[in-house]
Amino acid sequence: MMIVMKAGATEEQVKHVVERLEKAGLGAHLSQGEFKTVIGVIGDREKIADLPLAVAPGVENVIPIQKPYKFVSREFRAEDTVIEVKGSKIGGGHFAVIAGPCSVETEEQMAKVAEHVKKAGATFLRGGAFKPRSSPYSFQGLGMDGLKLLAQAGERVGLPIVTELLDVRDLDAVAEYADVIQIGTRNMQNFVLLLEAGSAGKPVILKRGFGATVEETLMAAEYVVKGGSSQVILCERGIRTFENSTRNTLDLSMIPIATRNSHLPVIVDPSHGTGKNYLVAPMSLAALAAGAAGVMVEVHPCPEEAWCDGPQSLDLESFSDLMAKIRPMAAVLEREI
Amino acid sequence: MMIVMKAGATEEQVKHVVERLEKAGLGAHLSQGEFKTVIGVIGDREKIADLPLAVAPGVENVIPIQKPYKFVSREFRAEDTVIEVKGSKIGGGHFAVIAGPCSVETEEQMAKVAEHVKKAGATFLRGGAFKPRSSPYSFQGLGMDGLKLLAQAGERVGLPIVTELLDVRDLDAVAEYADVIQIGTRNMQNFVLLLEAGSAGKPVILKRGFGATVEETLMAAEYVVKGGSSQVILCERGIRTFENSTRNTLDLSMIPIATRNSHLPVIVDPSHGTGKNYLVAPMSLAALAAGAAGVMVEVHPCPEEAWCDGPQSLDLESFSDLMAKIRPMAAVLEREI
Amino acid sequence: MMIVMKAGATEEQVKHVVERLEKAGLGAHLSQGEFKTVIGVIGDREKIADLPLAVAPGVENVIPIQKPYKFVSREFRAEDTVIEVKGSKIGGGHFAVIAGPCSVETEEQMAKVAEHVKKAGATFLRGGAFKPRSSPYSFQGLGMDGLKLLAQAGERVGLPIVTELLDVRDLDAVAEYADVIQIGTRNMQNFVLLLEAGSAGKPVILKRGFGATVEETLMAAEYVVKGGSSQVILCERGIRTFENSTRNTLDLSMIPIATRNSHLPVIVDPSHGTGKNYLVAPMSLAALAAGAAGVMVEVHPCPEEAWCDGPQSLDLESFSDLMAKIRPMAAVLEREI
Amino acid sequence: MMIVMKAGATEEQVKHVVERLEKAGLGAHLSQGEFKTVIGVIGDREKIADLPLAVAPGVENVIPIQKPYKFVSREFRAEDTVIEVKGSKIGGGHFAVIAGPCSVETEEQMAKVAEHVKKAGATFLRGGAFKPRSSPYSFQGLGMDGLKLLAQAGERVGLPIVTELLDVRDLDAVAEYADVIQIGTRNMQNFVLLLEAGSAGKPVILKRGFGATVEETLMAAEYVVKGGSSQVILCERGIRTFENSTRNTLDLSMIPIATRNSHLPVIVDPSHGTGKNYLVAPMSLAALAAGAAGVMVEVHPCPEEAWCDGPQSLDLESFSDLMAKIRPMAAVLEREI
Repeated sequence: MMIVMKAGATEEQVKHVVERLEKAGLGAHLSQGEFKTVIGVIGDREKIADLPLAVAPGVENVIPIQKPYKFVSREFRAEDTVIEVKGSKIGGGHFAVIAGPCSVETEEQMAKVAEHVKKAGATFLRGGAFKPRSSPYSFQGLGMDGLKLLAQAGERVGLPIVTELLDVRDLDAVAEYADVIQIGTRNMQNFVLLLEAGSAGKPVILKRGFGATVEETLMAAEYVVKGGSSQVILCERGIRTFENSTRNTLDLSMIPIATRNSHLPVIVDPSHGTGKNYLVAPMSLAALAAGAAGVMVEVHPCPEEAWCDGPQSLDLESFSDLMAKIRPMAAVLEREI
Repeated sequence: MMIVMKAGATEEQVKHVVERLEKAGLGAHLSQGEFKTVIGVIGDREKIADLPLAVAPGVENVIPIQKPYKFVSREFRAEDTVIEVKGSKIGGGHFAVIAGPCSVETEEQMAKVAEHVKKAGATFLRGGAFKPRSSPYSFQGLGMDGLKLLAQAGERVGLPIVTELLDVRDLDAVAEYADVIQIGTRNMQNFVLLLEAGSAGKPVILKRGFGATVEETLMAAEYVVKGGSSQVILCERGIRTFENSTRNTLDLSMIPIATRNSHLPVIVDPSHGTGKNYLVAPMSLAALAAGAAGVMVEVHPCPEEAWCDGPQSLDLESFSDLMAKIRPMAAVLEREI
Repeated sequence: MMIVMKAGATEEQVKHVVERLEKAGLGAHLSQGEFKTVIGVIGDREKIADLPLAVAPGVENVIPIQKPYKFVSREFRAEDTVIEVKGSKIGGGHFAVIAGPCSVETEEQMAKVAEHVKKAGATFLRGGAFKPRSSPYSFQGLGMDGLKLLAQAGERVGLPIVTELLDVRDLDAVAEYADVIQIGTRNMQNFVLLLEAGSAGKPVILKRGFGATVEETLMAAEYVVKGGSSQVILCERGIRTFENSTRNTLDLSMIPIATRNSHLPVIVDPSHGTGKNYLVAPMSLAALAAGAAGVMVEVHPCPEEAWCDGPQSLDLESFSDLMAKIRPMAAVLEREI
Repeated sequence: MMIVMKAGATEEQVKHVVERLEKAGLGAHLSQGEFKTVIGVIGDREKIADLPLAVAPGVENVIPIQKPYKFVSREFRAEDTVIEVKGSKIGGGHFAVIAGPCSVETEEQMAKVAEHVKKAGATFLRGGAFKPRSSPYSFQGLGMDGLKLLAQAGERVGLPIVTELLDVRDLDAVAEYADVIQIGTRNMQNFVLLLEAGSAGKPVILKRGFGATVEETLMAAEYVVKGGSSQVILCERGIRTFENSTRNTLDLSMIPIATRNSHLPVIVDPSHGTGKNYLVAPMSLAALAAGAAGVMVEVHPCPEEAWCDGPQSLDLESFSDLMAKIRPMAAVLEREI
């Protein structure tokens, strides 16, 4: 942390800041500029984080230098984290394809989707049983019944399953059936849920909050790790901007940025990230080209009859088409599906 | 809902959409433009909400016409909701002043703040016991001990207390001590928590998500009402934008917009909304002038020693100065404190 | 400027940066942290501005310390700049009310508006003759004819006039008629136009770009000053955000921020800033309460027949109502209209 | 255009709106919903564009149905526009690589870059002679001298050149030397400049404004076409969002969206779009995968000595590396460089 003093700060004010730092067990290093004094702070991240020195008299600005996360950083672990579930891998050159409907509807729907995406090359099956919906008047998911249908469909075709956890009180039940637990965008800073999800002993897909920075996403991942799991998969799914021709603005730059600063794999959800089915294929390919460790794609046998998020779902044929484009590009990039 | 067909849509495609609507128990009304056909949908909000007709063949766009919320709307209830707790009122011409530290630290700190803000004219005492922090390395609050200290300080000076609920499992304990339950910005779309908070029989302050629109905030309030409480107070606390000289961009337009569309009172948190102590006073006055039903302001005996959010806290004297400016302006506007 | 070296930066890399600074005529001051070295740069703003040291080997980050503007800063001039045109004042406790139609349409329309707003208490008359429109199919303004109609209406009622300059080639003509030259939001970083506008010897209203930060707005003002005019009025008019219930998000925090960092007056345009007539009055009062030096409001005798921006224009009666609310609040705040 | 009336709108209010439409030479088509009446408007885009019916009594909302642009739309021209300059092509399956320094500095610098990028496979040479800079204290470009150096370097290696036009008064001079005229992000809504640039008889690269939507970018392109040129190349270069780890957020979704709605080619500038050299390669590949018609990349012999934008420039070797990755991926995608 660097503390920049105002142009006219007095010696006394500088001394006061230095004393406050020393009282907190931190070191201070003065740098006298032409107009301004800058105080470098030396010591533990934990001690530094909460010091409100921005309001000490004579202080103009406080600038953090160290990254605010630790266990998820590349500095903590240099090699890529590779996550393996029932033979399907994410990270370290492995490109995961997670496919399935927005929400689990019926046994038949799940059977149809599961068979098709497995055959087309998907490596994980997804489906929502507990659905967070902006409107209380929208379908809220089938709950535990949906989860069981999902698990059954996954087992039948031999694909590990991914589903969202909404309520800490459902943790045990969800962990019993799900292979990978998903934390949704609206809960990215539900720290209670993050800690619990981390404690389940399962890999966790952490979706970036649509209002969260890449750095905050990494800090949220740090909570999951603190909760007990080092198997975290980051997921870019679009952020809120002024652009209104897409549901969200898919921020693909997150892939190389997070990959540079963290050892965790980064996947992309182009379905929620764009909200439009015709954008899913080009954005999936772009994600692969930008270095993503996988994509999560919504697939439904009949999108116009989907109970949820139809407009952004691929039908079965379009998903096969997408896989036919992903394969040769992955080969050129030396990525394994 | 209006369904706009593409310029070249066939009669068959139009017919298909109409059939889908009728199958869902909805009426259809065709409007033939020069280039495009528009289909008006007639029927229940609940039935309309989930129809994924945007992906039906020939459809260009689906445009909602009805508001997605009901119980919180002005159409449902024309008069302002006025909330009264132990004699302090919010809404309907009453301007509430909610003041107190970001986090409860010690008995002495709370006693000092409580006495001072009460004397200066505050009508509620606030304080955080369970703190949602972006970093797991930041102070996370004193928990139940903090809540008890807050309740004790409030009781001593005769002010109702406001505190944040983070975990559904803490509901009973929080409801036992708190007069008003606060839902934080990061949990605005934690629908599980919204429903539970609504069930506690206490007024709920719902902070707008920093990535949420005004409409989504009203939809989140609808969840609280559905949970059981009609005593919801909306709170603007800044949204995420590209502007970086403030922590968030305080969107004061929310006040007249939400007040026009909803009967719920709207208050403003200029401390989180700006992140800088010198902006708290001008933005509080602006909130009052724009028609807010109150402000929620962070006050600390010594901001530069605060365990949390010091840079945006007022010290005791600055809070008194602010109250001295609020009073005459409230008088001119015929608002009661 | 502070240059933060990476955790593993070598001595050689540090030396290289220091040498680059010295070669550019700048001083370097090393600060050795526990993990990282920080190099403070000492010297002229001009020399520092363009150094691309972020890509020198071993550099992690480059952090500016000095403000990037000079003549518009409070440090350069401590007292408020007060601008006076034909007896009407802006700044230093004077609250200006600039009113008039979005675009000049007819002599009759201008006469009606001018008379009414003058009587109601406006201190400037505005009107667009050259209109920047997002669509080439929208009305583009009456040009020089419009400008003459505006000037004539202003003269008749004794109000100085404000109009927008779009094209550097129109400068002389516009400067001949206008009392205050306006630079629109879309041209805030049209640096060619800024320099020319500054050379005309007239006060300049500089509208903040809807995608520009407060700091960039001050830098744009610095261009106008460099062009020759120290009479610059900053104008907040809303920024682009994800919120879609308003045309833009009016960022009233800009008022106290810019006022703290600059001696220039800051006014607010709630018409463009919100896009809705019913938000103009509450946001005007909020601007006044937050410390604005004035408001610029669109007024039209019959908004639903306006050739441009009708939905955000006040009719004559609503403008009178607004003035009736502004006056007592200005009195309480000890501001002069 | 659809006009949605309020729930309680009277027959008279509906009649009033219909009369206003008819007076403007437009047709009206009523659609009576359960709660609300919707009026469909039939007629010319030009006549509809400016009608301020949102403020007519009883009107709740006005919803545009037609696209606000015409000549640049796919509906106007179904086939891709392919632009060819001195043998280099953009659009219709041709992938252009535009490379060169942010600003022209010296003859030697230009010679070095031009030779290198040509050999590595670039198809256009870029360089800034007139530079729009946020700060008046930053280097503003060499002007005409720079332009001549650029033209000379392009000619020597046989690459057509691209350079930015800032001032309408420079049009003839710039058009004499440049093969392609660039309009910068800050001038995307400088409509005067757009019309003039369109009149020069040269292809125009139109950079998206960092605060502009895709639709507004297409409307700006419509201005260039109206000015006289149908040879417009759209360029995505990042938009302003809250994310602060990149200079801007590169919105790659623009590629498939604009390509679907317009026949114009869309290229991407990952240098400005990210602001960081290590993001240029992954984002270039992602742009190609998403369907871009080209990339524009900043290349400098020694980025850390660049007079402008060094941190986002590739050095010569990195550019060769990038080309080595682009080629096989273009082959897989059946794109020609």
